[in-house]
Amino acid sequence: MVRKFSDKTYHLFMWAFLVLLTLTLFLQRASAEEGMWTLNNFPKKSVEKKYHFNASDEWLKHVQLSSARLAGGCSGSFVSANGLVMTNHHCAAKCIEQISNSKKDYVEAGFYAKTAADEVKCPEIEVNKLVGITDVTSKIQNATQNLNEKDYNEKLKAQIAEIEKACSAGSEKIRCDVVTLYHGGAYNLYKYERYQDVRLVFAPEFATAFFGGDPDNFMFPRYDLDVSFLRVYEQQRPLRTEDFFKWSKSGAQTSELTFVTGHPGSTARLLTVSDLEFARDEKIPKNLILMSELRGLLTEFQRRGPEQKRISKGRLFSIENYLKAMKGRFLTLNDKKFFATKIAQEKNLIQKINTRAKLKKEYGTAFQQNAEANLKLKNIATELEFLETNSYGSKLFSIARSLVRAADELPKPNDKRFHEFTDSSLPQLKQGLFSAAPIYDELEISMMTFWLTKMRENLTADHPFVKKILGQKSPEELANEIVKSSKLKDIQMRHTLFDGGKAKVDASTDSMIAFAKLIDPDARSIRKIYEDDIESVLKKNAEKIAKAQFAVYGSQTYPDATFTLRISYGQVKGYEEKGHLVLPQTTFAGAFSRNTGKEPFALPESWLKAKDKINLNAHLDFCSTNDIIGGNSGSPVINQKAEVVGIIFDGNIQSLGGDYGYDESVNRAVAVDSAGILESLDKIYGASRLTSELK
Amino acid sequence: MVRKFSDKTYHLFMWAFLVLLTLTLFLQRASAEEGMWTLNNFPKKSVEKKYHFNASDEWLKHVQLSSARLAGGCSGSFVSANGLVMTNHHCAAKCIEQISNSKKDYVEAGFYAKTAADEVKCPEIEVNKLVGITDVTSKIQNATQNLNEKDYNEKLKAQIAEIEKACSAGSEKIRCDVVTLYHGGAYNLYKYERYQDVRLVFAPEFATAFFGGDPDNFMFPRYDLDVSFLRVYEQQRPLRTEDFFKWSKSGAQTSELTFVTGHPGSTARLLTVSDLEFARDEKIPKNLILMSELRGLLTEFQRRGPEQKRISKGRLFSIENYLKAMKGRFLTLNDKKFFATKIAQEKNLIQKINTRAKLKKEYGTAFQQNAEANLKLKNIATELEFLETNSYGSKLFSIARSLVRAADELPKPNDKRFHEFTDSSLPQLKQGLFSAAPIYDELEISMMTFWLTKMRENLTADHPFVKKILGQKSPEELANEIVKSSKLKDIQMRHTLFDGGKAKVDASTDSMIAFAKLIDPDARSIRKIYEDDIESVLKKNAEKIAKAQFAVYGSQTYPDATFTLRISYGQVKGYEEKGHLVLPQTTFAGAFSRNTGKEPFALPESWLKAKDKINLNAHLDFCSTNDIIGGNSGSPVINQKAEVVGIIFDGNIQSLGGDYGYDESVNRAVAVDSAGILESLDKIYGASRLTSELK
Repeated sequence: MVRKFSDKTYHLFMWAFLVLLTLTLFLQRASAEEGMWTLNNFPKKSVEKKYHFNASDEWLKHVQLSSARLAGGCSGSFVSANGLVMTNHHCAAKCIEQISNSKKDYVEAGFYAKTAADEVKCPEIEVNKLVGITDVTSKIQNATQNLNEKDYNEKLKAQIAEIEKACSAGSEKIRCDVVTLYHGGAYNLYKYERYQDVRLVFAPEFATAFFGGDPDNFMFPRYDLDVSFLRVYEQQRPLRTEDFFKWSKSGAQTSELTFVTGHPGSTARLLTVSDLEFARDEKIPKNLILMSELRGLLTEFQRRGPEQKRISKGRLFSIENYLKAMKGRFLTLNDKKFFATKIAQEKNLIQKINTRAKLKKEYGTAFQQNAEANLKLKNIATELEFLETNSYGSKLFSIARSLVRAADELPKPNDKRFHEFTDSSLPQLKQGLFSAAPIYDELEISMMTFWLTKMRENLTADHPFVKKILGQKSPEELANEIVKSSKLKDIQMRHTLFDGGKAKVDASTDSMIAFAKLIDPDARSIRKIYEDDIESVLKKNAEKIAKAQFAVYGSQTYPDATFTLRISYGQVKGYEEKGHLVLPQTTFAGAFSRNTGKEPFALPESWLKAKDKINLNAHLDFCSTNDIIGGNSGSPVINQKAEVVGIIFDGNIQSLGGDYGYDESVNRAVAVDSAGILESLDKIYGASRLTSELK
Repeated sequence: MVRKFSDKTYHLFMWAFLVLLTLTLFLQRASAEEGMWTLNNFPKKSVEKKYHFNASDEWLKHVQLSSARLAGGCSGSFVSANGLVMTNHHCAAKCIEQISNSKKDYVEAGFYAKTAADEVKCPEIEVNKLVGITDVTSKIQNATQNLNEKDYNEKLKAQIAEIEKACSAGSEKIRCDVVTLYHGGAYNLYKYERYQDVRLVFAPEFATAFFGGDPDNFMFPRYDLDVSFLRVYEQQRPLRTEDFFKWSKSGAQTSELTFVTGHPGSTARLLTVSDLEFARDEKIPKNLILMSELRGLLTEFQRRGPEQKRISKGRLFSIENYLKAMKGRFLTLNDKKFFATKIAQEKNLIQKINTRAKLKKEYGTAFQQNAEANLKLKNIATELEFLETNSYGSKLFSIARSLVRAADELPKPNDKRFHEFTDSSLPQLKQGLFSAAPIYDELEISMMTFWLTKMRENLTADHPFVKKILGQKSPEELANEIVKSSKLKDIQMRHTLFDGGKAKVDASTDSMIAFAKLIDPDARSIRKIYEDDIESVLKKNAEKIAKAQFAVYGSQTYPDATFTLRISYGQVKGYEEKGHLVLPQTTFAGAFSRNTGKEPFALPESWLKAKDKINLNAHLDFCSTNDIIGGNSGSPVINQKAEVVGIIFDGNIQSLGGDYGYDESVNRAVAVDSAGILESLDKIYGASRLTSELK
């Protein structure tokens, strides 16, 4: 499954990884269907040439305003005039789990609000709609030129915070992000409308949304109904939406030109060789090992009983999805031919830089400095991970750390705070902090025990930080103690601590707050080393390399993905695999023939009951050549008329290397067909209120 | 912990790995303390030059005859005239677990036979004593010259089987192994006396044997009492042993010259670059991922209850130990400087071969062919693993497969059988097959569920083998069904099936036998592809490269480890780490100061009680520069007078790259001091019967 982009549960190392992504290098122009294009730099000519379709500015604007971002790491689209948003089941899964309880499990049973009054608020979903893009490149580059690395980094962050603050003008309804494109080659200000009252309208059963489970994940052919519908509310009423995608009843047609709009989270196509080596030799294998162990642990945890299975299902699912994606990347990075190409391309660019005196003077040392910073990163990676990045798999700890840090950060001027505490980031932070989502002691203890154990294992029992944290206690003992006696499940208490600021936090004797306070000095100190000595060097040289790239190759290319709105084009098309042709479309009949009745190949009762009514030849899923990546989950697939013909929910196994490159012959995006969605809403779920709204 | 060499529980892929080790390349002469030398090629001159000690032929012969091999994958030594054998606790752990039950857990409580009558038979331990070494190189090379790869491989196996059979002359008391040295550069016939009646005399508590647990594993300083004593019986009486090591009461002295005799399992110091790349990019990461998941699963499995913890302790321990060792190897292989050296060395050899016409003609294509075979291996590795190598973590399945295969293999002439069914291998096979060791359904089902799930995940749900095995069933369902209804726990039934041969096996409707029969054709077919198309090429070219090596560099070097008797020399010596000096010896006082009372840093009750009696300054553990590797577990450390001064139980973290090279400045073997053993037997365990025998 095309993974969500920033689910904390598996985003171990993600912070360090994001930084990697602020790095650099774009070496070749995009060719064929390759590319996740910004809306203000769409390759109209290439599309017109190949498909005889002219994407007008109006068309692009309509598409932009009909697209949606789910702040947690997914994409979506407006599909009615009344704020109806379509996204994947797996993008709404956290909400579905959070509104469930031990008596009613909507993950298993599915959810359908028969009346408007039945629509239930999702505790942590935020929907963003991109309403404006402004180029702020010169503003930022002027402010940061000629500074040394540390000052550069500080000034850059301050400048960004300032621009964002001015843009949102104090309104929590506006979200403004300065987006670093081309790793610093350009900066654009993205202005969003922000909606935090989002309610669940419809979700099918997990068994059909994720039919085939982990074995089928990232595979094709597929037979999944990975879709859900939400509704955005404003002042307790459905949001009026002027721009939305109309629904195609006939769905996707073979060979048809398709567009995907969405928010690809991150790609690493423009990274330097030393960045890629760090990923291949250090980061990815380490994560694969840690997360595989956690996977085994959670698999067995679920055998404690049905309730334990319910409360950990979403987390295990995220981990498995993450693992499969990482394995794909690891495979690509270990592909010798692929890596040799990357090395050759970088060599070529360096040569070109060195033959022009001006370029050489300005950018000649950038690659070397970048490699040295990566070496430093390697040396502190374990400490950075276990002191700062990792939240011990505990929601309570995340809350405690946010409260402890808010007390220190918020009194500072906006531009001196950690980025996650700047004014423009606060609404999202607060949504998590004051979320009513349930927290389960048993799972908290289990996760915390695991991560404390891994901390001791990776830092060694003799590390001063380990001694300080564990003392004479075992990880299990400490986790039990802290989780059980903490009162942070009480949302009112979180408000009190947040509003009370440093005095209240200092005075708090809550066990989890105390733990977060104990850790914070060490965590801040390693983060400072990272930001001052590594991140700053990586960022500054990334910008240099980006500029050198523009100078050598020109600017008609697309930037690495940044979890901001992009559009890709392609067509519905099969591919060859192990000597046979994989057809691009699947049907309901295929789903029934794959059904074994046993998890994860067990169709839900509702399908079995409705079998006679369903048009078995209706299309269920399809694949296309659109270039996508994690974060594109929930993206609409639209045709030339800007009608929804499907919804992206996955890529095939060959697309997993998509982080580093795109191969049109086999990379495929995988989507649910709009016709299949309609068929199931009609015949299986009897969701007439919803289907009439779509039609 | 220096791992045992061939514990099935974690030896996933080991078969493929062993094959890797039949490959080739030795590029530099051994320098400094480096080297695991064969007893008939000991570098007497180097030792005499550096340490002024002359290792006479008599001395070497005495040392050889006093050393012992534990067929399961460990080393040991004879330490009395009455068949007393010293080995590690972790080498006897399986036995200690097997003689325990839910009422009496000797793993936790320790074991001491106060009288001879209390000594308990270990169900699966076999002790071997090496009594003769004969060079059979020309015999084998003559028989196999000028054959194509497939015929070469068949003839080689047949020739080896024939020599081994002639040597043991039908006696089950004699074990004969043709050992492939220098990856085919030389062949030696090793003749052993074989003892299968081995009884447990003494073992301390797991808590002290593995004090510090996984966090301290492969670390130094250490405070472990990882020792146990067994006794070899012959015809119900203790074996009379003329050669045995005397006991040093004063133990190891700083800077003293020390020798280690033992059975290092495998090293890869002589592998080609393509072999190492296969290990680095394919085999090791895959295993790390799979085994990490299993580790997580078993960790949580233990939380089901104390009995589940007891029955799975040994297995989890093996897995963690394996993982730590593999991580060390992975680190070394990802060390760029290290790998660049390997590449340069190979280039250098190839150049030298190419400048001499005769060498070029005979060996010029060997490296390339080797690389191509590794590529083929990469393509079938997953199928080889899940169809043939893996035994689904199930003891019952191993038994069933042995029975099914015995029925097919035993009627064949000796030299046409799978190697594990040749006459010389049968006694060990039978010991496992008819072992009275307990088998636990709950653990069997859990492991089998895991491995069947991994099979489906790795081969994909659409693989014909997966469809054949699972059908409409889930892995959990199938595992439950097969394990619960199998009657193979009944040893008499195993005898009946074994003795009854093919007719009985064909007629058997036992669920596990049926499962093994179902799998066998596919398993045999992938094994055949492997042996005919890959193994044969690798072996033949390995021999060629070995010969080229001899031609270019001469033969004064040591062969890669082969789980046969080796001797290394070195001295008791500390080392520098992160800017401080690590002293080479630890004391009982250190153990008490590290004690937190919480697992894995909890000293057992017996130690706490005896604290006042113990000489706290007595040495407990020490480290030395001896070159060792997994399989050396249980090796005696002896001084010039051939007295035991310690017993190897681990290497430090820096030694984990020892698979691929040796660095005298930081590689250290880790041992329990003979003085510390005596102190604890006397003061803590009151094991006077044992101490008087040692003294």
